[in-house]
Amino acid sequence: MGFFARGIETAPRAAIETHQFARLRSLLERSSLDNPFYRTKFRAAGLGSLQDVIEIARSPDRFRQLPTSGKQELLDDQAAHPPHGTNVLSPSPPFVRQHQTSGTTGTPLKVWETRQSWEWMTTLWLYQLLALDITPVDTIFMAFNFGHSLGLWNVLDAGMQLGALTLTGGGLTSLQRVDSIVHNRATVLVCTPSYALRLAEVAADNRIDIRRSAVGTIIVGGEPGASVAGTRDRIERLWGARLYDSPGLTEVGHIGLACPHQGVHLVESEFYVEMLDPETQRPVGPGEAGEIVVTNFGRPATPVIRYRTRDVARPVYDMCPCGRTFMRLEGGIIGRSDDMIVVRGVNVFPSLVEAIIRECGDVSEYSVEIVGTQDMYSLRIKIELDADCTGGPETIRRRIEDTFHRRLYLKTDVEVVPAGALPRSGAKRSRFVRVEADKPSLK
Amino acid sequence: MGFFARGIETAPRAAIETHQFARLRSLLERSSLDNPFYRTKFRAAGLGSLQDVIEIARSPDRFRQLPTSGKQELLDDQAAHPPHGTNVLSPSPPFVRQHQTSGTTGTPLKVWETRQSWEWMTTLWLYQLLALDITPVDTIFMAFNFGHSLGLWNVLDAGMQLGALTLTGGGLTSLQRVDSIVHNRATVLVCTPSYALRLAEVAADNRIDIRRSAVGTIIVGGEPGASVAGTRDRIERLWGARLYDSPGLTEVGHIGLACPHQGVHLVESEFYVEMLDPETQRPVGPGEAGEIVVTNFGRPATPVIRYRTRDVARPVYDMCPCGRTFMRLEGGIIGRSDDMIVVRGVNVFPSLVEAIIRECGDVSEYSVEIVGTQDMYSLRIKIELDADCTGGPETIRRRIEDTFHRRLYLKTDVEVVPAGALPRSGAKRSRFVRVEADKPSLK
Repeated sequence: MGFFARGIETAPRAAIETHQFARLRSLLERSSLDNPFYRTKFRAAGLGSLQDVIEIARSPDRFRQLPTSGKQELLDDQAAHPPHGTNVLSPSPPFVRQHQTSGTTGTPLKVWETRQSWEWMTTLWLYQLLALDITPVDTIFMAFNFGHSLGLWNVLDAGMQLGALTLTGGGLTSLQRVDSIVHNRATVLVCTPSYALRLAEVAADNRIDIRRSAVGTIIVGGEPGASVAGTRDRIERLWGARLYDSPGLTEVGHIGLACPHQGVHLVESEFYVEMLDPETQRPVGPGEAGEIVVTNFGRPATPVIRYRTRDVARPVYDMCPCGRTFMRLEGGIIGRSDDMIVVRGVNVFPSLVEAIIRECGDVSEYSVEIVGTQDMYSLRIKIELDADCTGGPETIRRRIEDTFHRRLYLKTDVEVVPAGALPRSGAKRSRFVRVEADKPSLK
Repeated sequence: MGFFARGIETAPRAAIETHQFARLRSLLERSSLDNPFYRTKFRAAGLGSLQDVIEIARSPDRFRQLPTSGKQELLDDQAAHPPHGTNVLSPSPPFVRQHQTSGTTGTPLKVWETRQSWEWMTTLWLYQLLALDITPVDTIFMAFNFGHSLGLWNVLDAGMQLGALTLTGGGLTSLQRVDSIVHNRATVLVCTPSYALRLAEVAADNRIDIRRSAVGTIIVGGEPGASVAGTRDRIERLWGARLYDSPGLTEVGHIGLACPHQGVHLVESEFYVEMLDPETQRPVGPGEAGEIVVTNFGRPATPVIRYRTRDVARPVYDMCPCGRTFMRLEGGIIGRSDDMIVVRGVNVFPSLVEAIIRECGDVSEYSVEIVGTQDMYSLRIKIELDADCTGGPETIRRRIEDTFHRRLYLKTDVEVVPAGALPRSGAKRSRFVRVEADKPSLK
């Protein structure tokens, strides 16, 4: 079982925190002096002097006095001060790369990398690949196009640094990708969960038995699917491989680290992570759902400090069977704080909706419209049936409606559509759409 | 004016040759021992012992006793011994990347890189970028998709190593690329000559004045166009930028180095280059057209030794105004030995045909069918007219037919087609097609 930096990955929590606060202090000092965006924010919060900032970086409680920052703030700042915004050290070292967020929620946020931060981004993937024992005997296939999204460019560099044959599946059809995976005897597949399903579907349509391919490890991110038991089981069964969920955010860096026990850790040596109640902004306890709020250490020229990711998860701090003491997310990322629906006082995330659909079985693809009326929500669900499903459409339709009602007291309206009718995509996307603008507050 | 390795780039020819033969000897020794493909070839040529091989690596004359190798041989070998073929050192270090030739002439040849050879490939582009004084203040835009073709992946690494902002224009439409070039204030554009024309066309269609963009340097490869004066002038005029031709071959490495005087040098510190008559295989003199035959030093695990590139050029050995003593190709790559047409004893290459069409003016795009009958050839040319052309279709049609007849005694049949009727592509492609299988030998 491999480690990138065993010492810190298995250190007692106090030692991790000492490491984090040393890095935090140096980051905050620099940002309060040379970063106009954070300097302004700090001053507005009454932290005018360097001494104030040093004091802040002494403990988790004091650090929480700093304001959080959010995507919209950074977007507004980039719009007002193109192209970089003011979240740039001055003078800044030269930038060598530029990427942007996927923009599913509006204007994309641009991120720039220096040579140093690019190496750091690669390091984050080295943590991940080494944890899964990827070695030079492996062949990694990256099933995605190399475009604007930062996503997996760093996997490429990390794979090469490890000495693994690292194949870039850009500019190919899904069938060509399946062929390449089979013929090159790829052992590791990197993609999104929905694209892992899509590739399996294309293989089956072309009578290619991908269970017999050499792929034994699938690393996914970009969507919550991998942490949903039903989806995970489905992908693992179709591929005859183990699935690992390794989440990252363009604007933050690749924060996730899936361990051999399929736990999702956060790389606490490279990020300071707070888990906060999205409403009250207070820390949640172990096992409670909280929003991940991040400060990253490896992009000092354009850092995020107390950045609200909107991703919600349940932190656990026990030692993992893998030996890591890095915070673990029970069940991975369970949803977005933006996507949370409150149904009779219960927080419902899309991942829970997905879990119920998968649990009902016999569904190959689905989409959900969330319809809000007064304080109630109902779901309009479209499903495609498995080619080898056991019941008739009407049976499956009823089963899903009944299960939602039984489990969540939620009214659903399920429609069976022909196979292939729902959109598929290799890029990350949501199967959930909200309808009716005139709906109650979603928070 | 920058250099990557000024000492060798400006060394006297004798010093270059001493450097080359030292590297040749070490390559040949290793290949004759541990590379089954070349060991077999060397033995078949009567070079059975290590001593024989050492003797061979003493002078250009002796070295010519080694057999040449060709693409078909390597392809057959890969087909017989998949996936690598036998041209692999044994034991081989791990490969980290795999690419393939563009396959316009049949099955693609696969090439593998080790970490070391990948670094070498990046080095070749550092020679190029430094020669054109690219620095961290530059922004490089690569207008192509990051797919199977090796092409410009190395530009990315080299650009980043230099500290320049290096933008990967994958997964974008041509208009989005134009927008990105303008908005990111790219100073350097890397693409194929025909795609530089295409981007200019798209910009004009959308009323974007790319002459006013920050692009001052365009580096192209993959097609002969850049060394054709008419095409070069057209691209330079449309973009208000200088054009540099920097040829490379997937199976060999990036052999070309365009200098500020727009001369096309070969990187003789990293390749041993022979210029041979395609028929007789004897060295051609300065200024004479010969086929480029290459031995590369930086891929010792999968080298090419005396590899016939099929590219034809005229070597010149005088010192260039840029200070380099590396062999210069007068007029760049003038054609492929495969594409050579002998008309009344005169070797005609597609580049000459293109030059004549461009010289006639008023043509925005063209395609050529080469029709062979007995010992004679005629050309069927389709042209699209410039939006701002001065003469009528009939005038331009006649002008081209007359010019071909006057210059080459060649019969042509010119047809004017509507704007946009001819195919465009970002990938390298030929505007030339041969028709009628029952034609005389083309050699």
